[in-house]
Amino acid sequence: MRELLLTDLKDLARGAALLGAGGGGNPTIGRLLVESELRGGGRVTLLDPEEVADDALVIPTSMMGAPSVFIEKIPAGDEGVRALRTLETHLGRRADATMPVECGGLNSMIPLVVAARTGLPVIDADGMGRAFPELQMETFGVYGVGGSPLSLADEHGSSGLIDTGTDNQRMERYARAVTIRMGGAAQIADYPMSGADMKRTAIPHTLSLALRLGRAIREAREQHLDPFAALAEALRATLYSHGRVLFTGKVVDVLRRTTDGFTHGSAWLAPMQTGPRVELRFQNEYLVARLGDQTAAIVPDLICTLDADTAEPITTESIRYGQRVRVFAISTPPVMRTEAALAVFGPGAFGLKEPFVPVETLA
Amino acid sequence: MRELLLTDLKDLARGAALLGAGGGGNPTIGRLLVESELRGGGRVTLLDPEEVADDALVIPTSMMGAPSVFIEKIPAGDEGVRALRTLETHLGRRADATMPVECGGLNSMIPLVVAARTGLPVIDADGMGRAFPELQMETFGVYGVGGSPLSLADEHGSSGLIDTGTDNQRMERYARAVTIRMGGAAQIADYPMSGADMKRTAIPHTLSLALRLGRAIREAREQHLDPFAALAEALRATLYSHGRVLFTGKVVDVLRRTTDGFTHGSAWLAPMQTGPRVELRFQNEYLVARLGDQTAAIVPDLICTLDADTAEPITTESIRYGQRVRVFAISTPPVMRTEAALAVFGPGAFGLKEPFVPVETLA
Repeated sequence: MRELLLTDLKDLARGAALLGAGGGGNPTIGRLLVESELRGGGRVTLLDPEEVADDALVIPTSMMGAPSVFIEKIPAGDEGVRALRTLETHLGRRADATMPVECGGLNSMIPLVVAARTGLPVIDADGMGRAFPELQMETFGVYGVGGSPLSLADEHGSSGLIDTGTDNQRMERYARAVTIRMGGAAQIADYPMSGADMKRTAIPHTLSLALRLGRAIREAREQHLDPFAALAEALRATLYSHGRVLFTGKVVDVLRRTTDGFTHGSAWLAPMQTGPRVELRFQNEYLVARLGDQTAAIVPDLICTLDADTAEPITTESIRYGQRVRVFAISTPPVMRTEAALAVFGPGAFGLKEPFVPVETLA
Repeated sequence: MRELLLTDLKDLARGAALLGAGGGGNPTIGRLLVESELRGGGRVTLLDPEEVADDALVIPTSMMGAPSVFIEKIPAGDEGVRALRTLETHLGRRADATMPVECGGLNSMIPLVVAARTGLPVIDADGMGRAFPELQMETFGVYGVGGSPLSLADEHGSSGLIDTGTDNQRMERYARAVTIRMGGAAQIADYPMSGADMKRTAIPHTLSLALRLGRAIREAREQHLDPFAALAEALRATLYSHGRVLFTGKVVDVLRRTTDGFTHGSAWLAPMQTGPRVELRFQNEYLVARLGDQTAAIVPDLICTLDADTAEPITTESIRYGQRVRVFAISTPPVMRTEAALAVFGPGAFGLKEPFVPVETLA
């Protein structure tokens, strides 16, 4: 158990956006939301997953929608708490803790806002170990936890509840429809589960990892060291053991469309000198990096774009023509690479034809 | 209080489809659903609105979606009860009665199925006195009853709940989105209200009126009398005092699209000899009848198409090329023509430029 400090937030947002693999929402908005809570006297306690009782009720909270919508339709602030309360009322039981469903500049932060407003602790873990665009793409679901019932809240005080039993993919479809009508972005509470299920299925210590990675980047900058080398070094002893720069170049084209409730598109990067271009295809998050005809990295491994000088993460709603970036790939934790996991969020789940090949075995 | 008999069902379905004004769902499917319940030993009691206690909890039940979907995706049978139970659980109270939200071949029948399965009585009244395509288009809402919370059920055992407070139009938009993802058709429970609110806002006696109108048509046929004259005569002493044939002709074209969760389109009728064509524009229900450049009838007055010989109602999902039909217009009850009512379901609510003109004052 430790308290999150105001001075942690920039590092945390940076690291969370990195682990968001291009998605998970905008880190500036995420940071400002939590900053406002802490400056207003709110406090946030992080719990190690092992500190949570087996029979505790854990209710994760998050935003749902297209990251490109969230930068224009900024949360009012109380949506997450209302989503939580709606689900608690429906279940007839109060939550003992909240937690993120994924890593991301916004989605690592929403549970902290909820925590600051309710006094609930936040568990240092999540259900993706990165960000994914769809609700069924959770280690919780892969390893048997139902996402239902799910609640949604908008900024008008309206709410929704969806219960599709054990069918998490149907839950995604019904909840996405409401989210789209809520303006393309909503806050939700889903995967209510016992502490025992959380410990069995979550990716542990991803909030503290985000904080460490964000800090490693900043400290390297301050010491005029290479932040990318620092990042690779910081990852080595973690569940994400392999991290490296795949490509350095400038953004020469971006195709981005907000359709079906997601931010879909591709960014194309050209090398500083000559050579083949890289295409980064995304659905909220980067799905595949293709260097000419070659797959350079593919989901569920993490593909990240970082400012070529500062290593500040650039998310898919913010990447734009002219930016100098490095594409940094990170191996996903082993529990995310099992057959069961790849069936839910491997390349095929996104309609990609390429098989999954671990990034550390790709040239 | 009276019990509904198996021998009532054909007349009831016919009359309900007539009052459905082209919409409200297919009468054959509606009749078969109730027939199956009554043959299986289910019983249905109709209550006069005045028999309902002021503090009773009334929960209307209905289908939501495009009539053109319901003729292919026939209800499993238990969706209505599940929608009711979901809402009851959410409210923490059991319903004392159910009722229709509108008149229609299917939507007058869904509450009867729910009644047969649960033992609840059905109130002889509804919230439109006809059918309308959207959820906010209810006299309940016009006169101050909130539609929320609303529940939805699909044939997969999934359910949803929407709560938009007093904003019934937002409720329509969110619930429509879920209905579309449920395959374009769902069963719902909404406008939970007190007996006092029901008595204050509902159009009374529309189930028994449907039964009487359906019977009047059949008896005229059996006695080789004009069923259209019998229909006009049967209407005279009711809230719907004016009914007459606007046009007789054959269907020469139909444009029908299932989009945005509705059955949208137009049917064009040519006279038997020469003369201008009639266009009947619909969104689930007929919205306007135009004879050349002239408005012949417009919402919320009822525009119905009936077989030219038998006066059997033909709904918008069933009208097709070559049918010989009569367009029959019926004046809507006065409570549906107030300024407040016209703001919610007058021509402007459907994007029509024509003002509302009572059908009895049109040539």
